[in-house]
Amino acid sequence: MSNEPKINSGRYFEDFTVGEVIHHATPRTITAGDCSLYIALTGARNPLHCSEPFAQSLGLSHIPVDDLLTFHIAFGKTVPDISVNAVANLGYAEVQFHQPVFVGDTLTTHSEVIGLKQNSNGKSGIVWVRSTTANQNDAAVLSWVRWVMVHKRDHQAGVPTNVIPTLADFVAPAALSLTNGFLGHDEINQATGSDHYWEDYHVGERINHAAGMTINESDHSLATRLYQNNARLHFDAHMMQHSPTGQRLVYGGVVISACRALSYEGLENALRILAINAGTHANPSFAGDTIYTITEVLDRWTLADRADFGALRLRMVGIKNTPADEVQTIKTEQGYHENVVLDLDYTVAMPKRGS
Amino acid sequence: MSNEPKINSGRYFEDFTVGEVIHHATPRTITAGDCSLYIALTGARNPLHCSEPFAQSLGLSHIPVDDLLTFHIAFGKTVPDISVNAVANLGYAEVQFHQPVFVGDTLTTHSEVIGLKQNSNGKSGIVWVRSTTANQNDAAVLSWVRWVMVHKRDHQAGVPTNVIPTLADFVAPAALSLTNGFLGHDEINQATGSDHYWEDYHVGERINHAAGMTINESDHSLATRLYQNNARLHFDAHMMQHSPTGQRLVYGGVVISACRALSYEGLENALRILAINAGTHANPSFAGDTIYTITEVLDRWTLADRADFGALRLRMVGIKNTPADEVQTIKTEQGYHENVVLDLDYTVAMPKRGS
Amino acid sequence: MSNEPKINSGRYFEDFTVGEVIHHATPRTITAGDCSLYIALTGARNPLHCSEPFAQSLGLSHIPVDDLLTFHIAFGKTVPDISVNAVANLGYAEVQFHQPVFVGDTLTTHSEVIGLKQNSNGKSGIVWVRSTTANQNDAAVLSWVRWVMVHKRDHQAGVPTNVIPTLADFVAPAALSLTNGFLGHDEINQATGSDHYWEDYHVGERINHAAGMTINESDHSLATRLYQNNARLHFDAHMMQHSPTGQRLVYGGVVISACRALSYEGLENALRILAINAGTHANPSFAGDTIYTITEVLDRWTLADRADFGALRLRMVGIKNTPADEVQTIKTEQGYHENVVLDLDYTVAMPKRGS
Repeated sequence: MSNEPKINSGRYFEDFTVGEVIHHATPRTITAGDCSLYIALTGARNPLHCSEPFAQSLGLSHIPVDDLLTFHIAFGKTVPDISVNAVANLGYAEVQFHQPVFVGDTLTTHSEVIGLKQNSNGKSGIVWVRSTTANQNDAAVLSWVRWVMVHKRDHQAGVPTNVIPTLADFVAPAALSLTNGFLGHDEINQATGSDHYWEDYHVGERINHAAGMTINESDHSLATRLYQNNARLHFDAHMMQHSPTGQRLVYGGVVISACRALSYEGLENALRILAINAGTHANPSFAGDTIYTITEVLDRWTLADRADFGALRLRMVGIKNTPADEVQTIKTEQGYHENVVLDLDYTVAMPKRGS
Repeated sequence: MSNEPKINSGRYFEDFTVGEVIHHATPRTITAGDCSLYIALTGARNPLHCSEPFAQSLGLSHIPVDDLLTFHIAFGKTVPDISVNAVANLGYAEVQFHQPVFVGDTLTTHSEVIGLKQNSNGKSGIVWVRSTTANQNDAAVLSWVRWVMVHKRDHQAGVPTNVIPTLADFVAPAALSLTNGFLGHDEINQATGSDHYWEDYHVGERINHAAGMTINESDHSLATRLYQNNARLHFDAHMMQHSPTGQRLVYGGVVISACRALSYEGLENALRILAINAGTHANPSFAGDTIYTITEVLDRWTLADRADFGALRLRMVGIKNTPADEVQTIKTEQGYHENVVLDLDYTVAMPKRGS
Repeated sequence: MSNEPKINSGRYFEDFTVGEVIHHATPRTITAGDCSLYIALTGARNPLHCSEPFAQSLGLSHIPVDDLLTFHIAFGKTVPDISVNAVANLGYAEVQFHQPVFVGDTLTTHSEVIGLKQNSNGKSGIVWVRSTTANQNDAAVLSWVRWVMVHKRDHQAGVPTNVIPTLADFVAPAALSLTNGFLGHDEINQATGSDHYWEDYHVGERINHAAGMTINESDHSLATRLYQNNARLHFDAHMMQHSPTGQRLVYGGVVISACRALSYEGLENALRILAINAGTHANPSFAGDTIYTITEVLDRWTLADRADFGALRLRMVGIKNTPADEVQTIKTEQGYHENVVLDLDYTVAMPKRGS
């Protein structure tokens, strides 16, 4: 019974080789149904992703797919090959949104192994991969690096040479892709409902978003299945009752999307995500948790040749079961506040005043 | 921390002025995904909203969007500006469905303040607004009046002159819009499964719909997010555990849609909603409540120049946790039966026999 | 109150006549929203149903609708007329998928009564129906036989002559429809992620699929409503608390779809379901149950004139709250293992090696 040759049990640490390219299964054509579900799952209100006339007023042919929906669907494809035997997702870096995705586009993802480091205990190791998602025209729409701690199948297996990639602390402004043809105009505020533009945000500013959203068991199950992310710990309550948490874990991407939607009030004009610079899931989330969000402005950049849009580098902090204004200190030398579930460093495009 | 200039905390009573027009954010293009979700959330079986050949047999170019889906999406847009600081939604009137909405249409909503009356306690007041939803061609597809009780931010703020609008008890038959080109035929019963036509319903008749539907926490959360209604009391369990109800409230529109779907059996040929004349959410609903429905026939009208369709004015009563046939008296002088959650007066178009 | 002439209470045993054809209400146009919801509800990862280029590489014009989504939607239409007064769904046979269904197709279903047998207690009887679902071009896309035990309204009603149809044990290979134009190629494994082809499966082989999925209350409610299946025992918790199970039952089709999705790992190349030969819901499922799946290979057939695809006859066993590898014996002479919820005999098309 233990030998199931038809079941692909996934790669263990010793199965990864630096330079190897892994083509992930299940290409996915994005549909209007996926986009509606994303709104129903998150409550997202960014008009760029739900108004065809507004998207067209910005120079796009159609409504683009929400950046995070694209990310979660692309990410989900890598799970069976990369992280199904992972102990932990350790981090993200250099997440870049290269160009918009539209309904009807088909996304295919591959990953290159760019780093390996066995842990000193000999039982696991860290694997770095750079994943790239292309559309049906072979144009890259999204790429990212993540690193995961993966079990060894055989603790006696050989130890690979350490290869630790050098990763950027953040995606540099010059590398941000604000697609040609994406153009500002002076009626954006009518669609977003906000008159706060790029100039109005200041480095060091903190926004305590007021809204909270409780994640129901079915909400996160539906989302994670929509993304075709098959990591069992999100779905199998029977298995998880014997785990340290005793219950299913909410996929971290569900928390990212909840925070992004909750932070709409105060960031209404943050129309597009250009990059995710770093991300930490500081504590697990479970069904029943209510998520709140803090935004801190980390940096403010002009974009080359763009008078209409600037970029903001933001820190988005997700907190469970404590409103944002009740959390003074997100992190100390001792670590994160016990209710912090997400610490994400990302970069958005925001129209300039009078653009 | 308490001063968050980026967060729009919404209008308080003293922020409204009679005659003011408020343009609501987030225009929304309706997609096939929205319509599928509406079926999944309600169990609606009206073939007009799920069969392209049937819609075309009635003279429409395509399947029209369910009237209540249009209503909820339009209503949701008004929440951040009108009712985010509301104590209570007091009523609806003059809800008119002017013409069908189709997949691909983009809905934009504005509201005019048509009445104000400060409460005698000086702490809140009543605001009446008339909201209008237009499609991308600037044609009105839906309009309605609602009135809400809203807190004052500053109890010392000036008292406005009372303006109390005169509202119709019901939308008069002559004002009902049965779109030109919407034509009856004698095979409607094949799609709806019922041979009960306009002539078969009698004023005073009561129908105890047998079916019940339990509202799950995720059901109403998904629905309310799909409608982009961001009223926190539907989503934030942490906040609500300190409220009098101790838990999240189900958005009243979810109950309306549940009752409409549950009342299909007995009203199969009530193809379209033409108007909502009045509505009261008599008691709150919570996840876990099972909703049942009673219909009473209030009136029966012919429609000018229409031999194929007539109108029925109906009372749709939602009851929680008690089957319809166990409720004798919906309302007495002392008020509503404690299990009544909805009392809605609305008008439908129904084919005449042999149309 | 007890006499509600507008409510169709459904057929009882004495209302069925052999040879009668029943046309079911609510024709349904399948949309992209339905297909996205199906992925969100099941986690299905079969690329045939989510990649337009992959579907086209196999000779189809577009992504076909998942076979089981078609089945559930078609089945749901028969419930109000056939099984709303059923005591039990006793079985399925001769379920055949005649040709693919695409987004935009409209499905209409009718049933012919092909058998009747009153039970010896005189209170109920067994009804056999053959149901056929056609698309908008009147082409049959699906047909099946099921038999249900239905209450008599009047225990004194006359006893019909027994007519017990002869049903095939399984759909013969020659009757399987692998649509012309559905063509294999040698890059199928890139989309499915598996190199296990038809030749690699052996009669008697058992696959213990590792993944489990917990069914949440909202998951099965959404699914069953999406299918417009209005059987009350899936929705009405108030009514069901007085039933023997004390709670809502999960629609058996939800379990079938869960098992199909969970068995993807190990059957990645089982691209299409050609037939369901027999099916038993051995025990009920409830929200909170975690479903696991075992597959046994029952038979392996070549298909006439097809060098690219063969057929596998499979047994798909659903088990609740016990992983597949912990169940040794599915059924003994005493009956099913108490955790078995589904025993389904079905036939799939799988590409041959080097096709």
